[in-house]
Amino acid sequence: MELGGASADTLLQLPWLPVNISGSQLLAKSWFGDASYHILLTDMSCVWEERMDSAAIQRRAQELNRRLKAQVRAFFSHLCEVAQPCLSGSSDRAATNAQMSLTRQEEGNISMRLKSELAGLPFYWEFHCAPAPVTSVCVQLVRPLLSMSRLLHRQVEQLGGLLLRKDAEIQDYRENGATLSRERLQTDVFEERTYREEFMAKTLPLLCLEQQDDLGLDTDLQNLYAAVVAHGNVRKRKLSEERVDEEDQTFTEELDLTPSLGVGPVTSESAEKDREDLQNGREDATKSKMADRPTGQQPATRDPSERSPSKPKKKKVGLFR
Amino acid sequence: MELGGASADTLLQLPWLPVNISGSQLLAKSWFGDASYHILLTDMSCVWEERMDSAAIQRRAQELNRRLKAQVRAFFSHLCEVAQPCLSGSSDRAATNAQMSLTRQEEGNISMRLKSELAGLPFYWEFHCAPAPVTSVCVQLVRPLLSMSRLLHRQVEQLGGLLLRKDAEIQDYRENGATLSRERLQTDVFEERTYREEFMAKTLPLLCLEQQDDLGLDTDLQNLYAAVVAHGNVRKRKLSEERVDEEDQTFTEELDLTPSLGVGPVTSESAEKDREDLQNGREDATKSKMADRPTGQQPATRDPSERSPSKPKKKKVGLFR
Repeated sequence: MELGGASADTLLQLPWLPVNISGSQLLAKSWFGDASYHILLTDMSCVWEERMDSAAIQRRAQELNRRLKAQVRAFFSHLCEVAQPCLSGSSDRAATNAQMSLTRQEEGNISMRLKSELAGLPFYWEFHCAPAPVTSVCVQLVRPLLSMSRLLHRQVEQLGGLLLRKDAEIQDYRENGATLSRERLQTDVFEERTYREEFMAKTLPLLCLEQQDDLGLDTDLQNLYAAVVAHGNVRKRKLSEERVDEEDQTFTEELDLTPSLGVGPVTSESAEKDREDLQNGREDATKSKMADRPTGQQPATRDPSERSPSKPKKKKVGLFR
Repeated sequence: MELGGASADTLLQLPWLPVNISGSQLLAKSWFGDASYHILLTDMSCVWEERMDSAAIQRRAQELNRRLKAQVRAFFSHLCEVAQPCLSGSSDRAATNAQMSLTRQEEGNISMRLKSELAGLPFYWEFHCAPAPVTSVCVQLVRPLLSMSRLLHRQVEQLGGLLLRKDAEIQDYRENGATLSRERLQTDVFEERTYREEFMAKTLPLLCLEQQDDLGLDTDLQNLYAAVVAHGNVRKRKLSEERVDEEDQTFTEELDLTPSLGVGPVTSESAEKDREDLQNGREDATKSKMADRPTGQQPATRDPSERSPSKPKKKKVGLFR
């Protein structure tokens, strides 16, 4: 079954991509399988999702496109092509000529209508997203965000400790009569409590005022999110492997994780590049995850090259009969 | 209406208290009004809630206690007395002689049965908690955790900057020939990228292995949570006041927020005290919030002294007829 734990697991590894649909600023995760998809959206006030399998896609496509008689696989590649750029805030969006609009519905659902052109005729699609199960919200947001907070808090503590050691070193130089050649290099003694109180009083009001496309989940936090969820997955796999074989063979893999995920310093100039890296990274991560699987299971994600708009698609012809 | 936005808003200001019921480690928030309550529970894999108004409490109490003929207000104080310690991980729990057990149900709900004694007869209660609406999970967990991550990340950046300045000062002393009297005081030059990579490689695996009663939301993070949600509330109030009066009179209040919330250094020894402070703080916060209201609204929370088990309660007598 394509739409079970496998798609949710793959979705977890994806970054939350900022998208703007009809003026609604959202973060999105989307996974497109062979003829199925799973999307997650959030505006940080709610989280919505839609999971669709092949049969449901076929039904809805025929309801929305009366003249469409093709099998689901035949038009699904077109749907991927036009929907994915819209759901990943990609610059390819304009190239597809697709129009996407979002409607918030009374019962708390959201509907996204997509209009594009297929074989010279209009092709319509609608994503019907309902509030996601709370368990998904916990997996995709609550737990990663808590782990991120815990990690960052440890880091704050450690850096505070390092600053105290720097101050002890500076004090020793001074007590031995050392002076600075440039007075502006002199720093204040770091006093943790005072620092923290001033930081909170200054930064908290500013943070709440910021209006951001990424809804606050900026590139650095996205990198941290990626590291945290990837680690959780390595650990899960490790635990299940331990049940079969008690030897701890994945320990080195776990320690090597961070550099490969690009958890390094990120400058604002390189933010766009990083986003691309994350996108590529997600495909690499998915592939390596697939390759790791002990059974000869079929990879659940489509080869990205299959979706390339530059490739000719035989299936496109004759969908509307 | 007691059970609307007011209870949700009050609940937001409360800390998540670690409780262990039948071996299930959970975090809980509970609000008991005049004859109504609202509880939230999470194990970080799901979030459950139950909101009950006076009429619903009356019905369930009579279903579970056939001989109970009293009005809801008459036995509700007893329910508060025995349920609150169970839902706040308090040491008073043993004193009430109440037994609480938790059952996970197939449809994803949890049920908590409470057995105590009232006027010499057994008194039964059940909390029926269903998965909380996603919007509640966003308000109570996702948004605060994201704000916490953002704040902590800023702090990490700032502390990294401070370390670079300390290194510049140290380098200047050294270049001018200064030496240390004790070699062990010498620190390594802080290199942000290397530090971060090593930190992630070391700390991430350790963090995931830790099993904690607080499910990872330790005292420091609780303090940060309190600061973030209190700020959000001040801001909300401020915005609604601005609609009435464009003058920004609450700005000083906003800046003074942090010290009063005790966002200072917290040692592990003072964790228990801090938890008590948080508990007291929540009542103070609630009261000051109420006092702040422009209209002469009745405070929605009960006076804590009313619930004190040491006070004789006339209402206790004759509930079972």
